[in-house]
Amino acid sequence: MRIGIVAPARPIDQGTAARAAAFAAITFPTVDLVFHPQCFLSDGGHFAGPDDVRAAAFLEFANDPAFDALWFARGGYGANRILHAVMAKLAPAASAKSYCGYSDTGFLLGALYAKRIGHPVHAPLVGEINRAGGDAAIARTLDWLARRNPSALEPSVGEEPVVAFNLAILTALIGTPWLPDLRGHVLMIEEVSEPLYRIDRMLFQMAHATQLAGVAGIRLGRVHDVIPNDPPFAEDAPQMIERWCREMGVPFLGLADIGHDADNKVVPFGRLQGAAARP
Amino acid sequence: MRIGIVAPARPIDQGTAARAAAFAAITFPTVDLVFHPQCFLSDGGHFAGPDDVRAAAFLEFANDPAFDALWFARGGYGANRILHAVMAKLAPAASAKSYCGYSDTGFLLGALYAKRIGHPVHAPLVGEINRAGGDAAIARTLDWLARRNPSALEPSVGEEPVVAFNLAILTALIGTPWLPDLRGHVLMIEEVSEPLYRIDRMLFQMAHATQLAGVAGIRLGRVHDVIPNDPPFAEDAPQMIERWCREMGVPFLGLADIGHDADNKVVPFGRLQGAAARP
Repeated sequence: MRIGIVAPARPIDQGTAARAAAFAAITFPTVDLVFHPQCFLSDGGHFAGPDDVRAAAFLEFANDPAFDALWFARGGYGANRILHAVMAKLAPAASAKSYCGYSDTGFLLGALYAKRIGHPVHAPLVGEINRAGGDAAIARTLDWLARRNPSALEPSVGEEPVVAFNLAILTALIGTPWLPDLRGHVLMIEEVSEPLYRIDRMLFQMAHATQLAGVAGIRLGRVHDVIPNDPPFAEDAPQMIERWCREMGVPFLGLADIGHDADNKVVPFGRLQGAAARP
Repeated sequence: MRIGIVAPARPIDQGTAARAAAFAAITFPTVDLVFHPQCFLSDGGHFAGPDDVRAAAFLEFANDPAFDALWFARGGYGANRILHAVMAKLAPAASAKSYCGYSDTGFLLGALYAKRIGHPVHAPLVGEINRAGGDAAIARTLDWLARRNPSALEPSVGEEPVVAFNLAILTALIGTPWLPDLRGHVLMIEEVSEPLYRIDRMLFQMAHATQLAGVAGIRLGRVHDVIPNDPPFAEDAPQMIERWCREMGVPFLGLADIGHDADNKVVPFGRLQGAAARP
């Protein structure tokens, strides 16, 4: 299996790539990881090279039939800035592959799923090799891609179609052409580094987005590194989501085993198919 | 002129109300300011009382024909949490009055304008009496409400229909039933206390929101207290908005004299009418 790696948002360094490649070579010997040189670029600031360079790298690998999957190097911020440039230029080869990532790269997963191009998968990023427990995290992505190992999956993934998003990325897609039609889907959300008032505001938008009417249910992933609210908020994240689910008229289905951490599980967008389905 | 004051988000204290009332009594003797007791409530945390209490106070004053206008006490966070409860319960008397505020209370201005109920006005809040230069700020709101004094207006307000929003509030309305139809409108935006990557992400959503297609142009108000970005962003706010306006296909019309400060000018939503029109 040949997996191409590009960085639609922030860059990784050569050491990160070497660690991920070494781990994969030992643990998944049939997997060939190909790092696009764009992964290591900088625009002098936040991004892994200018928008047009990141867009070109994504298109080059997505449209190359020699790759079975694309794996995003890192999140941060910036995948949204290439959507306008790339989404209309995807060739048939782009539909034959999986796309793995989460956090900011959920912009691409969402847009691809909106257009039903390929197989978007919420999964740990390459750069997570640098986390404590990062080996297990990136092994989960590879275990799903290369072996369709169901133990990599978020435990509730089963019969129903599902998606998973960082809440800030989901809400930033609302109203754009790149928010997928999620009728009948279980929607899992997770968040990191936000104060509770912002999380509440994002849940308001999710609950009242006319495009999200018909979602089958909501699951709450981990909410990490909450920024203190001044003055303090009277509710916590689970209370907030239960309240907004009531206002949305959608069942709150409980917790999801996803988040900005090494335990983050795999959520293939849509319905599990064929051999991938659980026994 | 009788102006009712309610607090859909955070509370004010009695001292703030007394200062605003004393200033108005001297400077605008024909204006009668009526503070709803709800303005001084707390829910023990962020809000000026629980959601249902804030909603009831808003409805009580909005539906009371004895008031010519409603003036919001303060922003913060929370006006969105009463939209679901109040918007379907507005009586005919609600359509005969102006509604003044900005920042978080832009949720109500936006929703009222979406349903074409009353006259929403972007204008300084009551609580701004506590700012340095706050007398001049709240005088501007009263000067517009009581005297239709054009010197209170944002200088570009003229022939074309206009609206003004905090960018975070505008983007949180996108996709909901409460985003107004802004075709043909000049849209002014301002922002405070955000890092540039978030501002960029909000501009992405504004630029690609299908509901905002047909906006006549964008003006940029002040962007205050920008939170440092790590790593630094290569662009500043004016460069960012010019880039997103190009991608949106909407002209960038220059700066707007609005923002989270004492100089914030008045922007009556829609088209200036009758005696209110500039000479």
